[in-house]
Amino acid sequence: MKQKHIDEIIKVLMNDDYNALQEIIHHEHPADILEALIDRSDAHDLLDKLPSELVAEVLDEADEEYQYELLKQFSTQKQKEIINLMSSDEIADLIEELEDNQKADMFNLLNEESREDVEKLLKYDGESAGGIMTTEFLAIFEDKTIKSSLKYIRNAEDVETSFYIYVIDRNYRLTGVVSLRDIVTSELDTKIAEIVNRNVKYVYYNEDQEEVSHTFEKYGFMVMPVVDDELKLIGIITVDDILEVMVDETTEDIHHLAGINKEEKVDGSLFASIKSRLPWLCVNLITASVSSSIINMFSATIAQIVALSAVMTIITGMGGNAGTQSLTLIVRGLSLGDIDRKNARHIILKEMGVGLFIGLIIGCFVSLLCYRYEQDILLGVLAGIAMCLNMVCAVTAGCVVPLLLEKLKVDPALASGVFVTGVSDCLGFTLFLGLVTLALPYLV
Amino acid sequence: MKQKHIDEIIKVLMNDDYNALQEIIHHEHPADILEALIDRSDAHDLLDKLPSELVAEVLDEADEEYQYELLKQFSTQKQKEIINLMSSDEIADLIEELEDNQKADMFNLLNEESREDVEKLLKYDGESAGGIMTTEFLAIFEDKTIKSSLKYIRNAEDVETSFYIYVIDRNYRLTGVVSLRDIVTSELDTKIAEIVNRNVKYVYYNEDQEEVSHTFEKYGFMVMPVVDDELKLIGIITVDDILEVMVDETTEDIHHLAGINKEEKVDGSLFASIKSRLPWLCVNLITASVSSSIINMFSATIAQIVALSAVMTIITGMGGNAGTQSLTLIVRGLSLGDIDRKNARHIILKEMGVGLFIGLIIGCFVSLLCYRYEQDILLGVLAGIAMCLNMVCAVTAGCVVPLLLEKLKVDPALASGVFVTGVSDCLGFTLFLGLVTLALPYLV
Repeated sequence: MKQKHIDEIIKVLMNDDYNALQEIIHHEHPADILEALIDRSDAHDLLDKLPSELVAEVLDEADEEYQYELLKQFSTQKQKEIINLMSSDEIADLIEELEDNQKADMFNLLNEESREDVEKLLKYDGESAGGIMTTEFLAIFEDKTIKSSLKYIRNAEDVETSFYIYVIDRNYRLTGVVSLRDIVTSELDTKIAEIVNRNVKYVYYNEDQEEVSHTFEKYGFMVMPVVDDELKLIGIITVDDILEVMVDETTEDIHHLAGINKEEKVDGSLFASIKSRLPWLCVNLITASVSSSIINMFSATIAQIVALSAVMTIITGMGGNAGTQSLTLIVRGLSLGDIDRKNARHIILKEMGVGLFIGLIIGCFVSLLCYRYEQDILLGVLAGIAMCLNMVCAVTAGCVVPLLLEKLKVDPALASGVFVTGVSDCLGFTLFLGLVTLALPYLV
Repeated sequence: MKQKHIDEIIKVLMNDDYNALQEIIHHEHPADILEALIDRSDAHDLLDKLPSELVAEVLDEADEEYQYELLKQFSTQKQKEIINLMSSDEIADLIEELEDNQKADMFNLLNEESREDVEKLLKYDGESAGGIMTTEFLAIFEDKTIKSSLKYIRNAEDVETSFYIYVIDRNYRLTGVVSLRDIVTSELDTKIAEIVNRNVKYVYYNEDQEEVSHTFEKYGFMVMPVVDDELKLIGIITVDDILEVMVDETTEDIHHLAGINKEEKVDGSLFASIKSRLPWLCVNLITASVSSSIINMFSATIAQIVALSAVMTIITGMGGNAGTQSLTLIVRGLSLGDIDRKNARHIILKEMGVGLFIGLIIGCFVSLLCYRYEQDILLGVLAGIAMCLNMVCAVTAGCVVPLLLEKLKVDPALASGVFVTGVSDCLGFTLFLGLVTLALPYLV
């Protein structure tokens, strides 16, 4: 949003021009109002000038932290008004984030209806279909007529309206879907049952959110119904929630691959950043000291051929990079659902092939480099062999490690990187320095 | 999709049971049919049993490569039927991917209408709003009545129907939006102009697709109208296209961060993988040989204190990891739109702070490690100082490099990694070995 637009909103909220304020209330998108207010110390005072309905909509757009911080600044009465106007899935997400005592406060603000919805939602795992669905949706009984359905749609309020309306039987079991267009284009006395499309796709409440987002992506749906074990319709998921899921899941992967917490924000606090990164660097420090002590073991050899210390870092560094390439490809492939039991074996074999070919090519270069430092052909050959072997091992590790972690239901992006570079370092140093030590009599 | 479901579809398509086939035709989702047929040598023969409408829908779901491969196997007549039933944006994307001579073939298959649409779409950059929009949409003139609008909606065919219908004036300029619900709930003789919401959000045809996806995410829209410079409505973008954009953009980031081509597929060919990764490893090889020649420069020093070779790899390795952490955070922040001119300076300063703190902590550990190898306090101190300085530089580079590249309109994920680790290696070796060489008289 343009800075100019932000300034306008702020200006209107600051001086109390009634008409300008009405403009904002009726025509500004809550997300824009939030963007204008965010990080302002007077955010609450400005929001206070808006009707509770709009404040609730603005809060719906904010993240849990900020929702709570803002809400707390209102009078208890106003807090009650606002929170009960927020959408139940937002309230549930908020409450999930809070400390137990804060949770209690929140619940006391809720009215009967909201409380029921929220308690229902809190029963579901936050990362499952039940956790991201909303309970405000339209559903019509299949024995109703178009006429009464239209009446129902007219009167329906604060529901996530969409182009599709789900059809249920008298046991609230999902039996089909009708598009608003079908309803509009049918005679008033037609029964819904006559125009319903029974081939409706749905997800179960306990399906993982990543699975659900794959389904949305595959079918290009805008909305999907969520059912319980008896196929009862319990909620809907709209694609805008899926957009958020995808952003979160990929951010998590990207961050984990680099060894930082999924939650770290670019504009977070210094302390938060340190807390997010230091643990990983400490793990790295351990693997690094292991490989360094391997080098130390071979200090006698290095003492005789100092050039080794220059060459060995290339061998380990290149191995690490190649391993990370394959690791990244696999991790991304896993979260895109491109890898399954069928093609896993084939992929591992291919990666080993890639490692071998690239290893041979890079190995030749390393041989030459090594020969440049120490005019000794045998040493060059040994360096090349070590490079090639290390490359194969690193790439294989980069491909096998995430697949194993996935099998063990551990996030494959997590810790794989440390492990793969660790392997390539330790192996690289051992292979190269070991080979040289064995061949030492023929070298010096 | 379950294997069982796939087998069912295949079975029906193989033996010609009319009723079962009708089941498939009317109730299977094209995406499911595609998933069942993909990678089958007899895909064309099986598809050939389905009506052209359905084949077109199946092809709409496939990627360009496969679309062309399948299409080519049909008779020219059938090809004509199918392609003209596909959605214009899919055809445009397909043609964009083809060789020039193939492009011509395709165009000859198109009928007047499709050709016009496709030619329009091809004028736009494939990664801009115009490139991902579809030209099949509903729009009504604001001077129409509800009654005639309903009639129009009834008769509208093969349009990406949605809950919202855009309103235009007689110059086809976008003037607002009405929801199908508003139409349904108004009197038949009401003019659209009376119920239109004039505060409609839109994107310009030349906006970058990543920008557009941010807008969708911010407002949680299902559909957005695309306008030209005169605000004429030229197309719509539906959120399912945005899901694809987000997947592509993030895959590109993740792959580039690891130095592989954005297009590389886990199940791609061995040759394709090598082609995708080797160039990056060669660049790495160059930086690696630079840093190794730095080591070689100091071989005299290392010859006197062999333990240096064990310690220096820790200093460079840790620096590289810390640099990559900050690099990844920044790159992700940039593509999420979390970083702008306002907070960039603050972020850089924070990252330097993080580097300093972490550097001090890790520096102490490295000092101890160094002391363990070579009982010399001064050497330990020097190692600690080098570690800390290198950490600060690496983290700063990890944060400044992507920001610079973004300013230069280069993909910040691209090449940043190589550069950051390169910096940390060269600096790390120079700092540590340099300091030690200076202090050598006091060490040995």
